[in-house]
Amino acid sequence: MTENFEFKLLATDGKARRGEVSMPRGTIRTPAFMPVGTAGTVKAMYLDQVRDLGADIILGNTYHLMLRPGAERVARLGGLHELIRWQYPILTDSGGFQVMSLSGLRKLDEQGVTFKSHVDGALHHMSPERSIEIQGLLGSDIQMQLDECVALPASPKEIERAMEMSLRWAERCKVAFGDQPGKAMFGIVQGGDIPQLRVRSADALSGLGLKGYAIGGLAVGEPQEVMLDMIDTTVPHLPTEKPRYLMGVGTPDDMLKSVARGIDMFDCVMPTRSGRHGLAFTRRGRINLRNARHAEDMRPLDEESNCPAARDYSRAYLHHLVRANESLGGMLLTWNNLAYYQDLMAGIRKAIDEGRFADFMAETQEGWARGDIAPL
Amino acid sequence: MTENFEFKLLATDGKARRGEVSMPRGTIRTPAFMPVGTAGTVKAMYLDQVRDLGADIILGNTYHLMLRPGAERVARLGGLHELIRWQYPILTDSGGFQVMSLSGLRKLDEQGVTFKSHVDGALHHMSPERSIEIQGLLGSDIQMQLDECVALPASPKEIERAMEMSLRWAERCKVAFGDQPGKAMFGIVQGGDIPQLRVRSADALSGLGLKGYAIGGLAVGEPQEVMLDMIDTTVPHLPTEKPRYLMGVGTPDDMLKSVARGIDMFDCVMPTRSGRHGLAFTRRGRINLRNARHAEDMRPLDEESNCPAARDYSRAYLHHLVRANESLGGMLLTWNNLAYYQDLMAGIRKAIDEGRFADFMAETQEGWARGDIAPL
Repeated sequence: MTENFEFKLLATDGKARRGEVSMPRGTIRTPAFMPVGTAGTVKAMYLDQVRDLGADIILGNTYHLMLRPGAERVARLGGLHELIRWQYPILTDSGGFQVMSLSGLRKLDEQGVTFKSHVDGALHHMSPERSIEIQGLLGSDIQMQLDECVALPASPKEIERAMEMSLRWAERCKVAFGDQPGKAMFGIVQGGDIPQLRVRSADALSGLGLKGYAIGGLAVGEPQEVMLDMIDTTVPHLPTEKPRYLMGVGTPDDMLKSVARGIDMFDCVMPTRSGRHGLAFTRRGRINLRNARHAEDMRPLDEESNCPAARDYSRAYLHHLVRANESLGGMLLTWNNLAYYQDLMAGIRKAIDEGRFADFMAETQEGWARGDIAPL
Repeated sequence: MTENFEFKLLATDGKARRGEVSMPRGTIRTPAFMPVGTAGTVKAMYLDQVRDLGADIILGNTYHLMLRPGAERVARLGGLHELIRWQYPILTDSGGFQVMSLSGLRKLDEQGVTFKSHVDGALHHMSPERSIEIQGLLGSDIQMQLDECVALPASPKEIERAMEMSLRWAERCKVAFGDQPGKAMFGIVQGGDIPQLRVRSADALSGLGLKGYAIGGLAVGEPQEVMLDMIDTTVPHLPTEKPRYLMGVGTPDDMLKSVARGIDMFDCVMPTRSGRHGLAFTRRGRINLRNARHAEDMRPLDEESNCPAARDYSRAYLHHLVRANESLGGMLLTWNNLAYYQDLMAGIRKAIDEGRFADFMAETQEGWARGDIAPL
């Protein structure tokens, strides 16, 4: 925990980095996974549990929170940390991605986006300045620039246009954010699947001297190889001394391979959303609890886990809860999945500290490849 | 905890009774509220939490469990206690009530009921003997006779026919249950809203020398006064030395007034179901968190409560969660409500022990009448 927002690089192992992002509300041990707390709650979890699993930071979605309960209301209530009872760092996205994916989008131009709320149909306008204002009202510790994330496939011209506008929006967001020593505003590299555009975006953003850099517009349906290529292309054009955040990623395998390429921070709905749909992430890969093979299997998901959801509840019970659509099923599997994600990040950090990240990665992947224990 | 199923009357205060129902899996302090764990889970709660709130026993629904995961399957898995991780007493209903309310009922006669599963449409037959067999397969500690609960209003003739058949079914259930010293099978008084039929039912059941007696077919839409009249009519015809269970009841006020009339045990979905729908039970009555008055109220539901859900979370946050239909809203309000119900029962027990039940009842009702704290 520090008065000013700071990033300290503690160790490297190949391109993998071990670091700490510090700010007044706490320190984020990197590589870090940030559980997604969309509308002010990490779905089906008490935030005390999320903290106990080792999360140093959670993510809030500006789009959801601006519509409900509303940014000005959250500010009147003392900010998001106070409202949701999470006194540690919070990162908020800009709202742009979800405006474009969830709302009835009405108009997007240089000024910003006009859209219709999916909650009540009301019209809203979001400019780069308003996005930063909203994130400030929420009290966010790490704020994201407004960007335009085009859906792939798209024409190179369209990808370039959106990337260039996102760069101009980054400058406007930087001005709007101003000087807040204890907080940060991150820029977002765009450029789709076109290496030259990714390089141009990363170089231009680096020139702005921001406190951190995200890579956006990936893990939106393209093959993993394309994503990894874009990371390989982009990372050398980002400053070494700033944290690097790969947005919306991903699977445990995506994260291992991205850490190996120099990424420090991740967020993804996968562990929470999959958990609510009956899928467990474990040391031995993914386990679909809906599958009939678990119906009479009284063994736990993973007897060696420290997480009660993985260690103390039988597969037969989890199977029953999932099949019966009982909320406890989602509660337990989300718990298991977030525990697995945090354990994986802790393992990654330890391995980098000890200079054996490549071995850790290979062992971890072997565990997944070995697959689940044999059926009874 | 005792080797044999036993009921000990520890104190009386007016007609209110303070007792203990003991069996190998534990002791139930009465008057007791039994949280409903329909399909092997008290919805939106970890069973550890339910226990910590002071529940000595939970209820399982035979109808739901026989359809999914299935009684024979539960037995193969070591019984319901083992499957759901609850080592304390469990009461199961007979399945009859829900066969009649939830399933596609095909035929009801002296032999039993034939019905269609609401899960997969499969045809099932349930006789009094099969109901007891299923409850045995589940491993239930307190089992209920199969009965026929007619929907009111109904003709006196129809109510009498169902009551008489329920009596014959009680005898068959008694035979089917046989001699199980550590467990109990309770009979169920029927007779609708007709005093003479209730008396006839209670007298006949008492003659069977069962280990406990339930009053069924109440709290199904009739005015509270009718319910209380039926309790007043029935209780004098039940043996003093056996526990008395009022099925499916009720509101906190219903429970106070029923304890005052000699009832020992209750179950109801109200605290859990209402919690999932945004309603909180508190010392100051019911609070609808959906109401806009809570939107910017950072005060907790009840700062004097020992339950974190009531004491540590703001109304503003609960309001937001309920409005946004977030599962944490149901988790917190269910937690609050079960805490309130268990605290109420603990207060009732203490008051009877101290011979001041009437005062406790008056004070509790005054608290509700005073209503919630004034809006900000």
